[in-house]
Amino acid sequence: MSQERLIYLPLGGAGEIGMNAYVYGYGPKNKERLILVDIGVAFSDMESSPGVDLIFADIRWLVENKHRLEAVFITHGHEDHVGAVGHYWERLGVPVFARAFTANLARHKMADRGQPEDMIRTVSAWPKTTKAGPFSVGFLPISHSIPESAGLIIDSPAGRVIHSGDFKLDETPLVGEPFDPELWKDVSKDGVQALICDSTNVFSPHAGRSEASVGPEIEALVSAAPNMVVATTFASNVARVKTLAQAGERAGRSICLMGRAMRRMIEASITTGVLTDFPKVISPEDAASIPRENLMLLVTGSQGEHRAASAQLARGKYNGITLKEGDLFLFSSKTIPGNERGVLRIINQFSEMGVDVVDDSSGKYHVSGHANRPDLQRLHEIVDPVMVVPNHGEHRHLREHSKLAAEGGRESIVAVNGTMLDLTGDKPFVAGYVETGRVYLDGHTQIGALDGIVRDRLRMAMNGHVTVNVLLDEDDEPLGEAWVDLKGLPELGRSNAPVVDVLEADLTQFLGRAGEKTLANDDKLEGELRRIARNTSRDEIGKKPEVTVIISRLS
Amino acid sequence: MSQERLIYLPLGGAGEIGMNAYVYGYGPKNKERLILVDIGVAFSDMESSPGVDLIFADIRWLVENKHRLEAVFITHGHEDHVGAVGHYWERLGVPVFARAFTANLARHKMADRGQPEDMIRTVSAWPKTTKAGPFSVGFLPISHSIPESAGLIIDSPAGRVIHSGDFKLDETPLVGEPFDPELWKDVSKDGVQALICDSTNVFSPHAGRSEASVGPEIEALVSAAPNMVVATTFASNVARVKTLAQAGERAGRSICLMGRAMRRMIEASITTGVLTDFPKVISPEDAASIPRENLMLLVTGSQGEHRAASAQLARGKYNGITLKEGDLFLFSSKTIPGNERGVLRIINQFSEMGVDVVDDSSGKYHVSGHANRPDLQRLHEIVDPVMVVPNHGEHRHLREHSKLAAEGGRESIVAVNGTMLDLTGDKPFVAGYVETGRVYLDGHTQIGALDGIVRDRLRMAMNGHVTVNVLLDEDDEPLGEAWVDLKGLPELGRSNAPVVDVLEADLTQFLGRAGEKTLANDDKLEGELRRIARNTSRDEIGKKPEVTVIISRLS
Repeated sequence: MSQERLIYLPLGGAGEIGMNAYVYGYGPKNKERLILVDIGVAFSDMESSPGVDLIFADIRWLVENKHRLEAVFITHGHEDHVGAVGHYWERLGVPVFARAFTANLARHKMADRGQPEDMIRTVSAWPKTTKAGPFSVGFLPISHSIPESAGLIIDSPAGRVIHSGDFKLDETPLVGEPFDPELWKDVSKDGVQALICDSTNVFSPHAGRSEASVGPEIEALVSAAPNMVVATTFASNVARVKTLAQAGERAGRSICLMGRAMRRMIEASITTGVLTDFPKVISPEDAASIPRENLMLLVTGSQGEHRAASAQLARGKYNGITLKEGDLFLFSSKTIPGNERGVLRIINQFSEMGVDVVDDSSGKYHVSGHANRPDLQRLHEIVDPVMVVPNHGEHRHLREHSKLAAEGGRESIVAVNGTMLDLTGDKPFVAGYVETGRVYLDGHTQIGALDGIVRDRLRMAMNGHVTVNVLLDEDDEPLGEAWVDLKGLPELGRSNAPVVDVLEADLTQFLGRAGEKTLANDDKLEGELRRIARNTSRDEIGKKPEVTVIISRLS
Repeated sequence: MSQERLIYLPLGGAGEIGMNAYVYGYGPKNKERLILVDIGVAFSDMESSPGVDLIFADIRWLVENKHRLEAVFITHGHEDHVGAVGHYWERLGVPVFARAFTANLARHKMADRGQPEDMIRTVSAWPKTTKAGPFSVGFLPISHSIPESAGLIIDSPAGRVIHSGDFKLDETPLVGEPFDPELWKDVSKDGVQALICDSTNVFSPHAGRSEASVGPEIEALVSAAPNMVVATTFASNVARVKTLAQAGERAGRSICLMGRAMRRMIEASITTGVLTDFPKVISPEDAASIPRENLMLLVTGSQGEHRAASAQLARGKYNGITLKEGDLFLFSSKTIPGNERGVLRIINQFSEMGVDVVDDSSGKYHVSGHANRPDLQRLHEIVDPVMVVPNHGEHRHLREHSKLAAEGGRESIVAVNGTMLDLTGDKPFVAGYVETGRVYLDGHTQIGALDGIVRDRLRMAMNGHVTVNVLLDEDDEPLGEAWVDLKGLPELGRSNAPVVDVLEADLTQFLGRAGEKTLANDDKLEGELRRIARNTSRDEIGKKPEVTVIISRLS
């Protein structure tokens, strides 16, 4: 038997939704030649990663093995699939292949980070393929909520793997290619070794609806609206933006795009030819002079992002435009879990202004871009692979998807980030584990999620911060009293005196009775001062704050 | 015409869900005698109030007018209606009236805070009434997700007001009194001036379902389960706890309650007689020795609370019990917006253990405790008041509920916290505004939401903290170099040197060139050092941290 093997190794996206990064390899054990599929980001939140700008998969293993890496392939242009390309390219140094629209976005990201745009290579869809070491990779069009999404056909001597990418089975997607079941059947007819398959909507029990189903509903809503209409959706959902714009146009309204992402995405779509027949748009300056009942704004900020157009309109004014009582604001989008508070804040602000808000709760104005449970089953049947490996999902999604595959009589396994699978045989098995994790982009800097930096921030957020300062002379005798400063802590404590005073008194008293050895030893003294500061704080205010101790010595 | 008037003033709960506190008054202007309905809490979150233990309505206005306050009435025992009674009672000093079950919970809260339990007065339901100044107040039973909920009949010389409290229209609630439409019609037949009405579910389009509808579904689920079953719900949803326990008993399982709140609530229910026929329960110790397929645990933590039983089971072990592959965990509850992450964390942890999780997404294992849109309409019709004033809801709920009332031909108005309404005439109007807000319980201490303390914590969480220390001699000359400590900030910056070193160099350089006037002036020197520390940090790591400057002078 051959010693060569086909491996699959998720570094991000398996065990979470976001930061997709999947390695495939073929060759002798530990000498496999590698490709990377997708290199995305995840988003931070106050509960676990305050102050963090973006989250990347930890690709240390891949960087250590970069001499084996042939190329990167990007399935589509969503941030969780392409967002890290500019940040990580330098450490990988191999060509990045994508279809035209995705490549356009990826080049922007390279340029933003000062990376060579020409390392992003545009490739045509299947039957065109790209050679990458032992692999031959083709982009098989599939419908999703962004133009030019593709599944990947990954051929190697161990057979064909199909990597679904994010997808839905939409035969009337309005923008981009429809899902073509015959094409997918055709590429699968000679046998597929493994289907690596999107899991995000496995808990949605009903077959997904087509993008085409929302147009008439939106049109009815917009044409019935008596005043200004504002709508938001993900800017990258170009089909939806077009549907919204057309609904506005048919209702005799001028269309104005607001928000940088919205304009950039429509430009990219027109440039790359994926978007045609987009209604004429007017500038925000012109919009301000048009009667409001003849206007429709398409704005960024469907997730309640603080700086996006929708949030600014909710706070008062954006680009010279103010909403008024009787205007209509449409969320043609769903709220991603974790963003509820931000979205509800905006909705309540609009409510205070008398603006009528319509969201997706009726199911009429939004459809998901992901395959639901019956759609996943259908794709399993069309591709009919030897094995199904669920990817892109939290553990619960992967496990449920794996069960679904097993119900269909197919081999399956749950493999979270860092789990290397051997896909060569008649069922997948775990070939090993590699270290993975998360890397935070924090301002300019990349830091490890477990470096303790964010942990310290969370502790300061929960418990506040105390600075303790003492001054000692040449003989290690305290000079004056201890000095304390508080941040994020109540001023008055249980004894109804300023907490600062109580802390300074306790610390000064300690200095008075501390022995020579303690006073002469920085570590010992710092430890004692910290302990006292924390205990006194606990007694006074019921919290143990973070403490910074500063010992200044005259010498 | 009389100079006397009937006023309504929400201090909490109108403009948010949580911390209910509603004042009613009757008498000459600004001399009205007052009662307070409910005195609840709201819960903190990392995004807006990290480290905060509980949130209360700011009742300063009421405290300033406490000589006019006659009594407090509590509609039911949920935390957002009774949770602040122990914290605030001392500042109000008047008797608190509630039905037996609610009073039992309220007394625990008084005892927890060292307040006199006998100030909680148990009263019977309508037709019994309590006199409070110009008011006569009766507790009219209504169904909700906790026993003995009541609407209040508030009579004054200006007519009858009905304050719905939280409610649903459940004629088979299993525990507690069914909603009795004839009784509500009867008390309304002589005319109701105003209905002050719960708004939380106004966006739910279908009539609410009865508590009785979930029992058979849960029974089917539990009896089909092959291994251990664990279920969670709000402990205070005594009817649901009973339904779960009975389902377990019928499936031949021993029932074990886990979590302090669960045991306390069931005890209170049995003590006050609202709960009968509850299955025999076994202790956690005994549970550990029972075959897992014969066991059903009812546990706290339906909202993913970190320390509750469910989260501890998800992390490994609780009370000697560990879940295993093939066990079933049922969320017989809905996730309150904002708690999604915590709940999903648990679900994924269970998934990793191979535990099958069932939640309310099918609609079979949970029903809401609040009136949906058609139920609100029905109550409007039964009570047929002159005016409807929506309460308990975010602005969007109040506004929608107000529209609904208007559609029914009734006068209505949106009144958020601090809005004093005059309810005396044929429609409500705004009689004035009082200052309101939020008070945070932070450890032992109450702090104002706008005191800047929590703002500082959020800033440290986002941007980290820098301590700067400089030492000056008797002549205001710097002694040695500036010294810097970082918390919650990356170690290396853009120049690839330790950020601490770069900061110390920049600050020391500044000290070398600073003029005498600056060095001699604490405020000036501190300002300059802070500015430099922030700017250098911004250049190095792209963040402007919070800075504490310590200047020590030898004198």
